[in-house]
Amino acid sequence: MASLSPLINELVEALTILPGVGPKSAQRLALHLLEKDQSGAHRLVGMLSKALDEVGHCKKCRNLTEKEYCPICDDAKRTDEQLCVVETPAEVLAIEQTGFKGRYFVLFGRLSPIDGIGPEKLGLDQLKQQVVENGVKEVILATNPTVEGQATSQYIQQMLQGSNVLITRIAHGVPLGGELEYVDGGTLAHALAGRKAFD
Amino acid sequence: MASLSPLINELVEALTILPGVGPKSAQRLALHLLEKDQSGAHRLVGMLSKALDEVGHCKKCRNLTEKEYCPICDDAKRTDEQLCVVETPAEVLAIEQTGFKGRYFVLFGRLSPIDGIGPEKLGLDQLKQQVVENGVKEVILATNPTVEGQATSQYIQQMLQGSNVLITRIAHGVPLGGELEYVDGGTLAHALAGRKAFD
Repeated sequence: MASLSPLINELVEALTILPGVGPKSAQRLALHLLEKDQSGAHRLVGMLSKALDEVGHCKKCRNLTEKEYCPICDDAKRTDEQLCVVETPAEVLAIEQTGFKGRYFVLFGRLSPIDGIGPEKLGLDQLKQQVVENGVKEVILATNPTVEGQATSQYIQQMLQGSNVLITRIAHGVPLGGELEYVDGGTLAHALAGRKAFD
Repeated sequence: MASLSPLINELVEALTILPGVGPKSAQRLALHLLEKDQSGAHRLVGMLSKALDEVGHCKKCRNLTEKEYCPICDDAKRTDEQLCVVETPAEVLAIEQTGFKGRYFVLFGRLSPIDGIGPEKLGLDQLKQQVVENGVKEVILATNPTVEGQATSQYIQQMLQGSNVLITRIAHGVPLGGELEYVDGGTLAHALAGRKAFD
């Protein structure tokens, strides 16, 4: 946009790194921050730079936190017996909504040799140590149902064989409210293969 | 969210000042900034704090810029004869898309006695001075078609009476592609009253 000043243009461009924000919305955000809510913008700058400086990984589950341990690992009321393995922090939040009361382990990715992501990057040694040391009875594999996600789960399952823990995988099938007609073939095949006795 | 660390929660809250960003999207943005694009996040902090420090108002049209004059006022190729009065910088960008090649004057608001916004806050003295000094031949009033926007236009029209400039108002009517059936009564009344000979 030649009609915006260079510095504002640069701000617009910096805002397009946000997911779901294209050039047009970035423009709207930039003008809002500079024109309508400067105090909010100052606060955002402060919080974001503080968070970038201080937030690291939980020593136990690897989730994002500015403390040594995240609030979930710190919560004595939760059970150590179930450990749910997910790929990202956002997935922890998603599973939290189900009322799950166990612990988590966040991989921050999935095995992907082509991108140079091997077991060490996902902290799988640390995962194994957690399972052995913390009295985990069930490891719930909740990686995404993609090729790499499935491969990651398989790898973890093999790694933990012999550790005397139950290893489970979350169910894949037709989503509630989903109509069979609109469900893709792969999901439907999973749903059929995973059928259970009607009770 | 008890499952997010306090600092991340504060960042989420700071992000909800963005227009169109609710708690859920703010969470997604926060995790994206901290987890997936830290370099982009650092860049955003830098640009936003720089813009907050340096961006002020163009001396001529009051639009946002970090320089003395904005790129539009600085552009010698544009005509001084037409001056378009708008409420916000975003509206400058909207009108730029029509190919308008005149100048602008940005009010940064509209007359609203109840909010304590009078003529001096909108820089109307400065507007008058521009009109007189810069050889403006036509002032195009493009304030929004709200009660305050209309009142603001009316005020400006009265203020400029006797300055020997043509004062026009952008047309209001049925939008292109709009179906009469779905257009509100006020707009339709405007469209009827503003009818023109068919040529």
